[in-house]
Amino acid sequence: MTYQFYYWPTIQGRGEFVRLALEGAGAVYEDVGRGPDGPDFAAVSGILWGEDQGPPAFAPPVLDVGGRLIAQTANILLYLGDHLCLAPAGELGRLWVHQLQLTLADFVAEIHDTHHPIGVTLYYEDQKAEAARRAAVFREHRLPKYLGYLERVLADNPDSVWLAGDDWTYADLSVFQVVEGLRYAYPEAMARAEYDTPRVTLVHEWVRELPNIAAYLASERRIPFSQDGIFRHYPELDG
Amino acid sequence: MTYQFYYWPTIQGRGEFVRLALEGAGAVYEDVGRGPDGPDFAAVSGILWGEDQGPPAFAPPVLDVGGRLIAQTANILLYLGDHLCLAPAGELGRLWVHQLQLTLADFVAEIHDTHHPIGVTLYYEDQKAEAARRAAVFREHRLPKYLGYLERVLADNPDSVWLAGDDWTYADLSVFQVVEGLRYAYPEAMARAEYDTPRVTLVHEWVRELPNIAAYLASERRIPFSQDGIFRHYPELDG
Repeated sequence: MTYQFYYWPTIQGRGEFVRLALEGAGAVYEDVGRGPDGPDFAAVSGILWGEDQGPPAFAPPVLDVGGRLIAQTANILLYLGDHLCLAPAGELGRLWVHQLQLTLADFVAEIHDTHHPIGVTLYYEDQKAEAARRAAVFREHRLPKYLGYLERVLADNPDSVWLAGDDWTYADLSVFQVVEGLRYAYPEAMARAEYDTPRVTLVHEWVRELPNIAAYLASERRIPFSQDGIFRHYPELDG
Repeated sequence: MTYQFYYWPTIQGRGEFVRLALEGAGAVYEDVGRGPDGPDFAAVSGILWGEDQGPPAFAPPVLDVGGRLIAQTANILLYLGDHLCLAPAGELGRLWVHQLQLTLADFVAEIHDTHHPIGVTLYYEDQKAEAARRAAVFREHRLPKYLGYLERVLADNPDSVWLAGDDWTYADLSVFQVVEGLRYAYPEAMARAEYDTPRVTLVHEWVRELPNIAAYLASERRIPFSQDGIFRHYPELDG
């Protein structure tokens, strides 16, 4: 089956966690917003409000699986984990990987809010003072807490470099993306934090070397980081 | 099976979404933190760092299902949905209810951050100015957006008063809790917002009248709202 994937065409954003899963599995998919004639924002916004497409989604990413729509990043990954063998097949194993993904989703939301602590309806420039305060708390407390948690999870799985079991899962791909994004957004704080979490760093390295992921990262399908996504580099927030 | 449930014993918090599911299903469970001798915070914090209990959780709530731990509120509900018949059995139906729950989780996180926009490591009193700004954006944009989304979902299921299919699911219980909490925290803003979302109001009413839920709400097991939970009533943030 060819999956139809809907997400904003010019940013990685939350959609990137799905793109990485599709790419890592070697799945055939169409990134609908990145049409042959350039970015097609209307196709993405249309899926949220269209008719006859099943229940509505609150926001992209959305995955069309044969005419039925699935939304919420972690929910899409739960589905792909089953269908593309990106998670354990047993009930508790797949719930454990999903639990890790939901914790990563919380982490990502907090990373986003460091530059938008007041609201997404305002520009960063309209909340710079608040962002500076929130980013300080993030660098000092939340960043080491989340990375330390992931490190402990990895240490609890000593016979493997991966988070859960013997093989990589969609959650490992998401750890790669979070590390990659944090290195872009918070290079100084992240260098300090990673010093204490070598297993997290290794997951990033191993994911980067997976053949399908390496090919994706080298392709034009991988959108660069920018100041429009979740991970934004404002030097005044790092340090 | 008797479930062992771990959550902070003096607040509703995120644990309340699990408590409502357990109560709604008439499940037998032990609320471990609410011990016979009063609140037992150590039992809850201990489950996060204990040995020989399987993989660690980042934060409560945690559900012990026969010696295996499941964490992340929506993940616990996904499990209970299957085991206590609180969600459709088919793949796409259960993913749809989970998608709704994850959207409610995003809503709850935003509600929480209205009084803690800078960070959970600081008191409200240390971020009152920022909270006032965030709450204004919340009241004007986010509250109507989320409630309007739920209203649209309900309108898309015209043969039922519930969110998905013919029967109530754990997501309907969560809608009840969110409405109940918002009426406590933002009575003025919520009264205005609910005026445009009568179907959401009806879900609240129907859930409240479910026999198991009505009995729970009338019992001492239901912890009152307070200024320590997700939903806090600061008059200066309402209006």
